[in-house]
Formats: sequence, C-alpha cells, structure tokens
Amino acid sequence: MASMASLFIKTPNPSHSFPKTHKPHFTTNLKFSISLHSQKTTKKINQKSRISCGLIEPDGGNLVELFVKESQRDEKKKEAMSIPRIKLSRIDLQWVHVLSEGWASPLRGFMRESGFLQTLHFGSLRLDDGSVVNMSVPIVLAIDDSQKQQIGESRNVALLDLDDNPVAILSNIEIYKHNKEERIGRTWGTTAPGLPYVDEAITDAGNWLIGGDLEVIEPIKYSDGLDRFRLSPAELRDEFTRRNADAIFAFQLRNPVHNGHALLMTDTRRRLLEMGYKNPVLLLHPLGGYTKADDVPLSWRMKQHEKVLEDGVLDPETTVVAIFPSPMLYAGPTEVQWHAKARINAGANFYIVGRDPAGMSHPVEKRDLYEADHGKKVLSMAPGLERLNILPFKVAAYDKTQSKMAFFDPSRPQDFLFISGTKMRTLAKNKENPPDGFMCPGGWNVLVEYYDTLVASENGRVPETVSA
Amino acid sequence: MASMASLFIKTPNPSHSFPKTHKPHFTTNLKFSISLHSQKTTKKINQKSRISCGLIEPDGGNLVELFVKESQRDEKKKEAMSIPRIKLSRIDLQWVHVLSEGWASPLRGFMRESGFLQTLHFGSLRLDDGSVVNMSVPIVLAIDDSQKQQIGESRNVALLDLDDNPVAILSNIEIYKHNKEERIGRTWGTTAPGLPYVDEAITDAGNWLIGGDLEVIEPIKYSDGLDRFRLSPAELRDEFTRRNADAIFAFQLRNPVHNGHALLMTDTRRRLLEMGYKNPVLLLHPLGGYTKADDVPLSWRMKQHEKVLEDGVLDPETTVVAIFPSPMLYAGPTEVQWHAKARINAGANFYIVGRDPAGMSHPVEKRDLYEADHGKKVLSMAPGLERLNILPFKVAAYDKTQSKMAFFDPSRPQDFLFISGTKMRTLAKNKENPPDGFMCPGGWNVLVEYYDTLVASENGRVPETVSA
Repeated sequence: MASMASLFIKTPNPSHSFPKTHKPHFTTNLKFSISLHSQKTTKKINQKSRISCGLIEPDGGNLVELFVKESQRDEKKKEAMSIPRIKLSRIDLQWVHVLSEGWASPLRGFMRESGFLQTLHFGSLRLDDGSVVNMSVPIVLAIDDSQKQQIGESRNVALLDLDDNPVAILSNIEIYKHNKEERIGRTWGTTAPGLPYVDEAITDAGNWLIGGDLEVIEPIKYSDGLDRFRLSPAELRDEFTRRNADAIFAFQLRNPVHNGHALLMTDTRRRLLEMGYKNPVLLLHPLGGYTKADDVPLSWRMKQHEKVLEDGVLDPETTVVAIFPSPMLYAGPTEVQWHAKARINAGANFYIVGRDPAGMSHPVEKRDLYEADHGKKVLSMAPGLERLNILPFKVAAYDKTQSKMAFFDPSRPQDFLFISGTKMRTLAKNKENPPDGFMCPGGWNVLVEYYDTLVASENGRVPETVSA
Repeated sequence: MASMASLFIKTPNPSHSFPKTHKPHFTTNLKFSISLHSQKTTKKINQKSRISCGLIEPDGGNLVELFVKESQRDEKKKEAMSIPRIKLSRIDLQWVHVLSEGWASPLRGFMRESGFLQTLHFGSLRLDDGSVVNMSVPIVLAIDDSQKQQIGESRNVALLDLDDNPVAILSNIEIYKHNKEERIGRTWGTTAPGLPYVDEAITDAGNWLIGGDLEVIEPIKYSDGLDRFRLSPAELRDEFTRRNADAIFAFQLRNPVHNGHALLMTDTRRRLLEMGYKNPVLLLHPLGGYTKADDVPLSWRMKQHEKVLEDGVLDPETTVVAIFPSPMLYAGPTEVQWHAKARINAGANFYIVGRDPAGMSHPVEKRDLYEADHGKKVLSMAPGLERLNILPFKVAAYDKTQSKMAFFDPSRPQDFLFISGTKMRTLAKNKENPPDGFMCPGGWNVLVEYYDTLVASENGRVPETVSA
C-alpha cells in the first residue's frame, strides 16, 4: 500500500489543527516519495493556505468537527461512565466517525426528529438563516424499549463501542418513534425484503430513534492497517491546498478500478485543463464503511487500487487516494446525493457520476432497483448541491479494435464489449483473464487472489480484511 | 344547497375573466341573499380588485389557467380527433380539472420526468429563476404499452373523457417509465397492499407516464348539481377580493362538519381579529375528487355542510364554501402539503392543520399509517410553503360539563369525550344520537339519512351521488 501512502506528502508546517495528520503512521511504509513541490514550495503553499484555501465552502459555511479537546478526554470518559450508556453497532460507529469529522456538515450529531423528517421528505435541511443544505439519507441512531426506559429523563447518554469503551457523548437528546417502514419506503423507494443495509442495520434495530449533539472523545480508528487512508475532510482540504489544486474532482467507488474508470478520470482531468484549470486534482475515494457481502471488501480493493497506481494507470502526482468512512446504503438516487454532498465538505467542487450510482439489482424482481439515469438526474436537481459541478460519466467499454477501454462510439457498436461488474467477478472467480487492456495485470491478480481466499476459506465465509 | 349558493353574491362587474361565474346556475336556487356589501360597495371593491387584489401571490407569481380560448374550441376539438388519443379515467379527469384551473400553479400540465423526480425526492419544484415551489404529490398520467406504441413519434396527444369526448390536448409530450413501486414507496412511505388511491389509480395503470403541456378545451363539469360550488382559484380570489377579505383561512375537509370543527373555525377567526385583521374570511373547502369507499360521499357531505350553515353554526357572511376538485391520496404528511399549496393558489394565507391530516389506518397493521403530528410538522418545514401561516388545530372534544364541543382542557381530562370519525359513523349507522351539542341536528340527520340509503341500496353498494 506504500505507493498510495506516498501520495500524501509529509508537510513540515501543516495548516490544519486536526491532530491525525501528524501521526507517524501517516508517513510509514513509504517505499518512494513522489513530490509535486520542493520543501520550499510546500512551505509557501502552506502559508497561503492559512490565509485562504480557495476551496469550495463546506455546507453551512463551517466544517464541523465534533472532537473533544485532548485535554478534556479523561474528564469526558469519566462523564460517559456516569450517564446512561448505549452500545453502538459497527455501522453506528461508522456514522459516529462520519459525523465526527464533518462529512455531514453542518449536522452536529444524530438527527432529531426535525432533521429526520426533512431528510425523508425533502432530502435537505433548512438552516436557521433560511439557507438549504443537501441531506438525503437519515443519519440516525436506533434504540429499543429497554434502552429508552434506561435513559429515562437523562438529557445525555454515552455511546460505547463493541468493546464497551466510551466513544462519544450525545447531549440534549430527543427520543422519537422509529417508523422503520416509512424510513425504508422513503429512503429506498421500496420496502421489498433483502435490501442489504436494511437487513443489516434497520430490521432488527429498536423502535425509537435518539438524536442529539455529538461530542466524540477520540478520533475513530479501526486498526486494520488502513487508518492512514482515512483522511478527514479537514485533512483532505489541507492536502488539496498544499498541492495548490484549483479544481478537485471526486470519484466515489466501491469496486475495483478498471481501465474504463481510469480513462474516465484521466479524461476528466484533461477536460478540466481545457476549461482553464491549472491543477485539477483527483480525489479517488473508495467507500470504507459497510458494504454488502458480495462486494469486494475494502482491504482487497485498497490493495487493488495500489496496484493500479503502481502500474501507472493513474498519475500519483495529481491523485489523492483516501477512504470515505460512510457505510453503503445501496439507495441509488437518494444515496448519490449523500456521496456528493460529503465530498463538498471535503473540498471537491466537481463530482463524477456514473450509470446507476449506488444502485443494485432489485432484491426480489429481475431488474435493476433504480433507473440507470435517475442518479445523475436527481443529482443535478438536488437542493443544496447547486454549487457542485456534476460531471456525468461517459460510457466506457472494451474496444476490440484497439484492445483497450475506450469511450463507446455508438456509430460502431459491434466493436465494443461491455464487461459488467458481475462478469468481471465471474471471470476473476474462475481465474479466467479479461481481455488485455481491461485492467492492469497487477490489479487483476489482486482480484483473483481475493476470490482464491474466498474459495479457500472455510464454509465460504467472506474474509473481512487482508493485511494491507 | 341554497344557503351555500347564497354565500356567493352575484357581482355586477366581475373582475376576473374566467367565464364560469357568469353562468346562471351560479345564482339559481337562492332562497335568501346574504349580502355583506350594498351594490355600490361591491362595485367599488371590484374596481379596487382590478388594480391590486392584495391576496397572497400564487406559486410562481402567476395563476396558471390552461383553457383554450372560447373562439378556438372547435378548432382544438378537430385537432384532437386528428392525433393519437388517450382515454382518461375518472381520477385522471379530476387531475385535468385541477391542472386546468391552476391549483397546481405553476405546473402547466402532467409532469414530465424532471417534475416527477423532483416531486418524489424533494417535494418541490425548482423554477427557472431558481425559486422553489412546493409540489409534494406526483400529478402524472399513466399509459400502457399499446398506448405508447400507438402514440409513436407524435409530439401531441388528445385526452378523451369516459364518453370519448375530447377534453384536452397534451403537447410536447415526454414518455418515461412508470416505476410504480418507487412512486408508491416515496409518496406513501409504504408499499403495503390496500392503499385506496394506489388500488384505484396506480396498481392497474400502465407502465409509462406521459407528461406535457395541457390545453383544456372546456372547463370540466360533472353535472351532478354541485358544479356551482366548484370555484376555480381565480373565482375564489375574486370572491375574497370582492368581500374585502384581509386574511383567508382555509379549512380542508373530507368529513362531515361537527361542532368541534365549527368551534375551531370560529375561534380561528377570533384569533385573526385579535391579531389585527379586519375581515378574515373562512374558505370551507371540502375535497371533491376521489375518496375511499367508506368516506361519506361528496354530495352527502355538501348536504350536511348546508345544514350546518342553515343552523347558523358557521357565519355565512364570513364563510365561503367551495369544492376542491382534487382526488384524495390518503398520503398523510406528503399530501397535506398539496392541500395547503393548492389553497395558496386560491388566495389563502392561513391554513388550519389538524391531527393526522390526510391520514388513515395502516392498511395491514393495526395502527395509524402516519404519526398524528407529522403532518403539522412536515407542513411547517416544507419548501415553498414558507409564505403560508400554518395554524395548528387545537384539540376539541365533547365537554360533558358544558354539553358542547370545547377545547380540551388537560387539567380535567375526565370531563371530555373524544368522538372519533369511526365512532361518529357507527352512531349514525345505528341511528343512535351523539351527545347533544356534538353536531347540529339538521347535519346529523343528513348522516343518518345517508347510512339509511346505504343499507337500503342493493348489495350494499355505496351510492355515489344524491340530488343536491
């Protein structure tokens, strides 16, 4: 994973106050260092960034960070053990992570009922000053009857991780009914059984939701070898500023990168240069939270992305690879807004949107759950996303005449081969090779290796992580 | 019905251009005439209304009316017979009515996909100037595969009523997929079987939607003796102006009026007077389109409302009774926005919202489909409704100590009796009397009479109309 770590250059004078960047793991495992700027240049840019970063403003004007001051951590831990406690699920903790770093700015905690209703009905939140920010997916915390009873009249609750360590305090709480059916219907546009996030996080959740203001005791870590890629919006903004980027284009993905993706990303950069930008930077931003069982796990995807960069398919000098900590909802046009909005908060002003973003097959019927072009359309209409430049995907396919991925030319359809994600996975599972030029060999081998471990693993259980 | 007709005073110099008001049926059956103003005053006010009506602006700034000029009707009828034709259902025709008179201003026809998606996802439409109007329910027209094929490449289609008469032309059409499940899930927050509007108008509808610009050949009439109460937004605005109203408070209803409702309405007027308004006028606005089988049919409700006015429970001088032509969706918090938004277009700047507006029992589970307070909350948050003053319902109940409907006093709950709609219907069916003071006797007798006809009618079929 060294080549990706090298995309982040140790800054001698970091301009942001967030402590994570200083940690040694951030620069460990550097095999080689690619530096856009000399130390001198870097310094100069850092100085500039202190004055004005020039990046797109976060939603609500200020990037929210919900961390307790280091000097108050012990005190808050003590407080946490003296008030009612709620144990978080794995996905709950991912949302705490998301909230704590300001991906959902200006949201300052799990939604109270007002935010929940606005999200379900309007995909947006109206702020006190009358302005509107996008917010399409509910970020809520469910509790059951006994937890509600245990909380009683308390105004604050502590949130614990799976090992019962206090993670955060939720204050000025509001408890309201969790109408799961309505939440699901309005978020997914279906209540069909088999929606992955619903099965994982909603069906068995409690019948109440608890909202409030979140104070997170320490930055969330997963200790899976990938924490160094989990850059917060503040850290990403600093990195973009340090690189002197004048356009940031974000690419959300939850799948291995093939050469069609790469073509699209390099072509986007070319178009931005043509538009007059001097230094467009790509944020290659794999989703790192919950994904469904048949998706390739994060650790394997990161390994695959590493190979793609090593093989020179993407230019490390103009690419930042980082992990987006959100869980995946597979809620199509509703979710793609969340994916885009969160990237505004990280400084992106261009967002690449593909065919059927955040989509999947209908869990019951033989069709895609969403119309393939609705994501792109809804994104372009979404309240609060007017500031973001939406870059619709051109369709890339394998051009047999050139033996490489190319933009589909409708005048000669017979020359093109479409290789779906399912097809790709089937080939890798069967150790068959895709056509030359579909994916760099190093990246492909990672996929084959992943499916090997799947077959080898007892009773076919999906291995959650690999060593990075 | 005469006493209600009398609420509309024949204006010698009507200021609006819409022809319906001039029709003789508008002043027929007048038993007595209640006049707020002398002819002279009326004239003066009409002159004033030509300059500036002072009422709340319609959504989008201009009230949309989609009627063909009288001189062009024949031509348009001919045109209609020369292009592909679509037969409208009863509910489709009600939507044509709604659109034609501008209740959905600034919408100019059945929604194209952009409007449909914005409605489903954001409950609102963004206009070309960037402003936002509320639009929470899809106003769409479904066609099936064979109709789509028949339309072919035509840019325009004719819409026919149940008797094959041409009603309207839809031009610059756009045909797009009708994903019923998603439409239902996002509109109702459930896809449970048994939603009345879904069963009636969606389940068996075609798999395509057709949007376009609507031109309606003639005002829609139902010839059920109630057309004179179907005042368009333009006509209502003229009436309010003529009455010199400085506040219009709308009361949407689909049930018989009892004294609790009446108390609420008179109390609202009192509050508005206290706020400094000189002449608040009530728009008592029963919904006239499709309702579910166990609701009291429109004709009986109108008869009941007439008795309530005759009995002096409401003051005819400050009350306008008219029919709102929309079908009923029973979509709770989503639909109440539509009910409110349409009344803005008719000139109302105050909207009374009750417990669980547009709600019903869950069709499968033993609970209300929506939380009782969500309608009120969502209404207060809804984009595009910021200009409307929301007046939340106080809870009225039968006060046994006073033998009348009164605002519930939580300090002495034992003194109050809550009489639900179900309870009311059961009493009327069984010819039992409600407690004295619950409803005026004339109004109650109408209900008893209705249920009598129900029992008497062969095989229990609900009679659709009574002579008014």
